[in-house]
Amino acid sequence: MKGTVLYGPRDVRFEERPEPRIEKPTDAIIRISATCVCGSDLWPYRGIQKIAKPTPMGHEYCGIVEEVGSEVKSVKPGQFVIGSFFASDNICPHCHAGYQTSCQRREFVSTAQASILRVPLADGTLVATPGPSEDLIPSLLAISDVFGTGWFAAVAANVKPGATAVVVGDGAVGLLGGLSAKQMGAERIIAMSRHESRQRLASEFGATDIVTERGEGGVARIKELTGGVGADSVLECVGTQESMMQAILSTRPGGSIGYVGVPHGVELEGEKVFYAHVHLHGGPAPVRRFLPELIDLVWERKVNPGRVFDLVLPLDQVAEGYRAMDQRRAIKALLRP
Amino acid sequence: MKGTVLYGPRDVRFEERPEPRIEKPTDAIIRISATCVCGSDLWPYRGIQKIAKPTPMGHEYCGIVEEVGSEVKSVKPGQFVIGSFFASDNICPHCHAGYQTSCQRREFVSTAQASILRVPLADGTLVATPGPSEDLIPSLLAISDVFGTGWFAAVAANVKPGATAVVVGDGAVGLLGGLSAKQMGAERIIAMSRHESRQRLASEFGATDIVTERGEGGVARIKELTGGVGADSVLECVGTQESMMQAILSTRPGGSIGYVGVPHGVELEGEKVFYAHVHLHGGPAPVRRFLPELIDLVWERKVNPGRVFDLVLPLDQVAEGYRAMDQRRAIKALLRP
Repeated sequence: MKGTVLYGPRDVRFEERPEPRIEKPTDAIIRISATCVCGSDLWPYRGIQKIAKPTPMGHEYCGIVEEVGSEVKSVKPGQFVIGSFFASDNICPHCHAGYQTSCQRREFVSTAQASILRVPLADGTLVATPGPSEDLIPSLLAISDVFGTGWFAAVAANVKPGATAVVVGDGAVGLLGGLSAKQMGAERIIAMSRHESRQRLASEFGATDIVTERGEGGVARIKELTGGVGADSVLECVGTQESMMQAILSTRPGGSIGYVGVPHGVELEGEKVFYAHVHLHGGPAPVRRFLPELIDLVWERKVNPGRVFDLVLPLDQVAEGYRAMDQRRAIKALLRP
Repeated sequence: MKGTVLYGPRDVRFEERPEPRIEKPTDAIIRISATCVCGSDLWPYRGIQKIAKPTPMGHEYCGIVEEVGSEVKSVKPGQFVIGSFFASDNICPHCHAGYQTSCQRREFVSTAQASILRVPLADGTLVATPGPSEDLIPSLLAISDVFGTGWFAAVAANVKPGATAVVVGDGAVGLLGGLSAKQMGAERIIAMSRHESRQRLASEFGATDIVTERGEGGVARIKELTGGVGADSVLECVGTQESMMQAILSTRPGGSIGYVGVPHGVELEGEKVFYAHVHLHGGPAPVRRFLPELIDLVWERKVNPGRVFDLVLPLDQVAEGYRAMDQRRAIKALLRP
């Protein structure tokens, strides 16, 4: 079996790897139908996040079950399944509370840019659907992380019908955060983006306004667009100090920030957050909580999150997928084995 | 008229001051029935928060209206009134959203440890009650800040019936945060305190458990008491780095922290907060939002928040009130002109 391994900054290789097999009775083996490159994969790709040794990559996936362990009851060979980037048992107290990415038995799924994948805790992690038509596969794949994460950003930012929502970040998560806010009834959706192709997709997904300024200028523009009040809901989909402070300062007192960009070097000054009077919530998106609902939305063709994939490559060209995203030639690269 | 002025660390003087008078048509002048020393007054008293010049003190008050400006409609001379430490117009968008301490026209009330006080924006700020019996005055005064702030901590920490709530901080705000959590139906209330007299009052207010450990030890104890899960709601009523991290790490994923201790030197590490998966909300308590509800609770004698005043002094002995609180001989000092 072949899979993707990151050897160091900008050194992605597609190479022979040990065939995944059932290790625990709760595992499933799936044959990947589609996988992709995540914005968070770019942190180690760019060398900003150090890796100690060659590291298998990939945590977004959908595919056909090939084999299940003896204790697996809810999925069976031949079924098409989607799972989250964190495997979860879906029965512990944290899962019950809807925070499956904090599951007491969670395991990160880290080898999905491959043709075959072992998924731990299959009963708690995977959701089966009927065999989808080919054109639905990108959108079903998107649910596995990027759409689920954008959705969580909107949930955490407490988007309500009639709300004004701001999206900080025009990567695939931010774009799908905007789509999620639209689904939740936001009346005004302000996308912060300075890239024309991304602005277009943001508008297609429901953005009513585009703001190109960043930092203080961006905050001033949001204040201007909201009559000096600030936004009800801000989706923070980047994870830098600048984007986080921009989100906090763009929110009205009593408003909410949903942050899903993995923070890199972010330090929040207690006093600033205190006087901003905002709600903060976020973290690794508990995608499992949303899987049934998002699968329905895609299945009924009410949304088309797969539109974020503007580059489709055979899996063996995965390195080009990373390059295109690193150079911002592509929003997100889909890979087909 | 005499009032309280802080000249420098531990130098509190009660001295002749200019008589407050109506400056704007929206002002009211009130004769103070009772005022008190706040935990936050101790920051400048101890020299931790610098003051540039002699500074009048006091922001908690109730009393009788003596005079109102020409535009004031909702209160009139002779009425007993209670107000918040921030004057607010109660009609701007932030007030409408329930965040009166972020009112677009807010003014801090900073000269209340005196016999007479000017309150700006009287219509938006003050709530009148019938003349109270003498024994209700401490509890009505408490609503002005310390009870309103404890109440907001519990609201911000999303305390629900049946919840497990932790209170970090055994000052008057923390103690009343516990009382508030009890009113909101928390089933288990864990007070973190190592002072016997405060532990007793916490229990009287509804605490079911007392934890004396702090920092990592405190977090471990909360985890132990909650079956390894963490608390649903944590009320952070101190404002230091240690107390804030203790609050965050004691909360279950998906749980909520309400923080009302004014942060001093607090820096939140983005990545830690991200993976803690918690809700954070707080800031200066919008006491005005809660005044009618809390006045009713006190009036119907369902709660007795005035119990936090374990020292009553004539106003001219205000310096002793500061000393007693600084040395933790008193939880909170009430001052009567």
